Amino acid sequence: MTMICGKHAQGKCVHDQIFEANAQAVAAAAKFGKDNVINATIGSIQDENEKLVCLPTVEKVFKGLPMNEIAAYAPISGIVEYLDLVQEATFGKFRPQGVYTAAVATSGGCGGIHHAIWNYMDEGDTALCGDWFWGTYRIICEDLLRKLTTYKMFDDDLKFNFEGLEAKIKELLAKQDRLLYILNTPGHNPTGFSISEGDFAKVLDILKRQSAAFGKPITLLLDVAYIDFSGDKDEVRKFFKQLENLPSNIFTVICYAMSKGFTMYGQRTGAMIGCSTDEAVVKEFAEINQYTSRATWSNINRACQKTLITIYKDPALLEAIEAERAEYYAMLKKRADLFTEEAKACGLRMIPYVAGFFMSIPTSKSKEVCEELKKEQVYCVALAAGVRVAICGVCLPKIKGLAKKIKDAMDKVGA
Amino acid sequence: MTMICGKHAQGKCVHDQIFEANAQAVAAAAKFGKDNVINATIGSIQDENEKLVCLPTVEKVFKGLPMNEIAAYAPISGIVEYLDLVQEATFGKFRPQGVYTAAVATSGGCGGIHHAIWNYMDEGDTALCGDWFWGTYRIICEDLLRKLTTYKMFDDDLKFNFEGLEAKIKELLAKQDRLLYILNTPGHNPTGFSISEGDFAKVLDILKRQSAAFGKPITLLLDVAYIDFSGDKDEVRKFFKQLENLPSNIFTVICYAMSKGFTMYGQRTGAMIGCSTDEAVVKEFAEINQYTSRATWSNINRACQKTLITIYKDPALLEAIEAERAEYYAMLKKRADLFTEEAKACGLRMIPYVAGFFMSIPTSKSKEVCEELKKEQVYCVALAAGVRVAICGVCLPKIKGLAKKIKDAMDKVGA
Repeated sequence: MTMICGKHAQGKCVHDQIFEANAQAVAAAAKFGKDNVINATIGSIQDENEKLVCLPTVEKVFKGLPMNEIAAYAPISGIVEYLDLVQEATFGKFRPQGVYTAAVATSGGCGGIHHAIWNYMDEGDTALCGDWFWGTYRIICEDLLRKLTTYKMFDDDLKFNFEGLEAKIKELLAKQDRLLYILNTPGHNPTGFSISEGDFAKVLDILKRQSAAFGKPITLLLDVAYIDFSGDKDEVRKFFKQLENLPSNIFTVICYAMSKGFTMYGQRTGAMIGCSTDEAVVKEFAEINQYTSRATWSNINRACQKTLITIYKDPALLEAIEAERAEYYAMLKKRADLFTEEAKACGLRMIPYVAGFFMSIPTSKSKEVCEELKKEQVYCVALAAGVRVAICGVCLPKIKGLAKKIKDAMDKVGA
Repeated sequence: MTMICGKHAQGKCVHDQIFEANAQAVAAAAKFGKDNVINATIGSIQDENEKLVCLPTVEKVFKGLPMNEIAAYAPISGIVEYLDLVQEATFGKFRPQGVYTAAVATSGGCGGIHHAIWNYMDEGDTALCGDWFWGTYRIICEDLLRKLTTYKMFDDDLKFNFEGLEAKIKELLAKQDRLLYILNTPGHNPTGFSISEGDFAKVLDILKRQSAAFGKPITLLLDVAYIDFSGDKDEVRKFFKQLENLPSNIFTVICYAMSKGFTMYGQRTGAMIGCSTDEAVVKEFAEINQYTSRATWSNINRACQKTLITIYKDPALLEAIEAERAEYYAMLKKRADLFTEEAKACGLRMIPYVAGFFMSIPTSKSKEVCEELKKEQVYCVALAAGVRVAICGVCLPKIKGLAKKIKDAMDKVGA
């Protein structure tokens, strides 16, 4: 075969565990009947009738848009009103004060992570995140000729592992000029972990200490994709206030997604928000990411941006969408509470779940466990650090007994 | 200022001539009245009432989609049916036979060009296109640490400059391992040039000859963004048949956009189609571009893909959209014919226009000409090689006299 593609591109191939496991579950449901299959692979909310949820307010607003707002291009960086209101959607009452911020529209949350990994790392550098992580972080790093390494996210008592984090930061800053640290909170994928305000302060202390010690900048990428289904809207946003007190060599990029918060996965719209005490850093953020947007996708879905603008400008619509989010958050919480209770009862050890779409079971034999579960028509996702259970996609009656099934499968394979 | 971003990212900034000139035209229309301003900057079709056109069949189908087809994720590479039917939309009756093809969904046409420049070039390599080109090609190359060079597209008689093309290909293949050559046809942006079948055969001969001489692969990127408004649907597609007879070290990537063909600019959907006599090259194409999609935008707008699927599966809808395209093509042609006739009458030298959204006037003083035109409330785009006139956005009564205005402005500034 002629080597047509570039050297760096040769042999790239996605084996997406999540899409593959989902395809198997869908096939099983067709064969054995939907009621006999538990599909805990999908990262989108299915209601108690196992139908994909689209928030009614989003549907009403989107379907009501005039056609020219759907057909026309948006500006490269995003519609000006969107760039303001998406910050309101992200920060709520806790928009950091006394600092500079700017937003750039992105293709979902993923697009902002792409831009940050491209623009805030040098080629060959290594990004850092916890050992429970969304696998796409690694794919983005590798496609862009960067690397990803992890620290053990939890200590033996399943508390946040500050020492592990600090050691890895020191190791990386010793050998490269800058560091990108990715923290997915609240409602972390795949564990449902949300960092507490106190723990977040400690993380920031580590970043400040090591950035100062090495005299090198750190970019903190906060992936908040799940923030709108992670609990009380104010409580989950309080930690943003801590971004007010950072030195200028700590730069924060927040990646927000309409995929989850507006249940508009397929419309590919989100934003990256830069936040710094240094105005020049935020100006540069807006410029270099606009440039990368022009060079990547030209511009972002106008209709979806207009949907957010329409809702966030209208108090009645905003109230309605917040009520809908609260309703589905409560639905997720019921599922999580039942699973947690049953896990405890049967002795299944879980990563401490706070909120979000997923729960995780630590094991080094995740593949074997998932294969064993398939025999019972239960489909989960095998990650390096354990098994991911997408409670967002499993109705309450099917949650019942699920923890025990997983415990049994683990016992069978000796996990 | 702390150097937060990566070294390669420092100082990047888009100065988008097109968006800037459009903003000035919009401001002028607000001040002097719409009737007194000619806005020839926008790359989307405006009807004779200066309203953005959205094809009625597209509106009907898109607005009729069930909400779950809008909200849900699409697969990373695209919906399977879309990947087939977008090839039908692109190739029509002239789908190359006896070769392998595969499609990957992209963010408009731009997204496919991004992927091709990333995956079919090595870092530091130089891509090639004509000296009349869409400026975004250069932005993509530069953002991705590649370069772009040009050959003089037309000789002194305004015929395709084969010698210039071949000389540049030799120069580039002498110093790098592979070459990406971008050819935008039919309805070339910014000139409205469409390559004839005979000239395309000569271009392919050059590619074959030089690829063989150097023993190095060439990727031919055909940017066909304007194909659906460039003339008779069969006539403009005949040249695709010539892709059947290429050696395996010539790989073709065709970038198709729903932006223009479906007037769905804002929904950001298109496809890149790989075409080769070597099955392995096409398999690799599907894999590496799926990988880059996962790493860039995760997946592409489901609703827009479904719109294409719905229309191309239904003969009545297909007939309707083709009639609508023909109607707007005829509208563009009337404008182009009038402009061409008046240009000839007043001695304004143009690049030979065949079809598409734009016409161009060669001059080395394009900025001065555009500034002079603004005094008459005429807004065009100044390119390095000349002035671009977006006839897609100017109604027929405003086309009348436009060529003379441009000729006068050129005379005034001594262009």
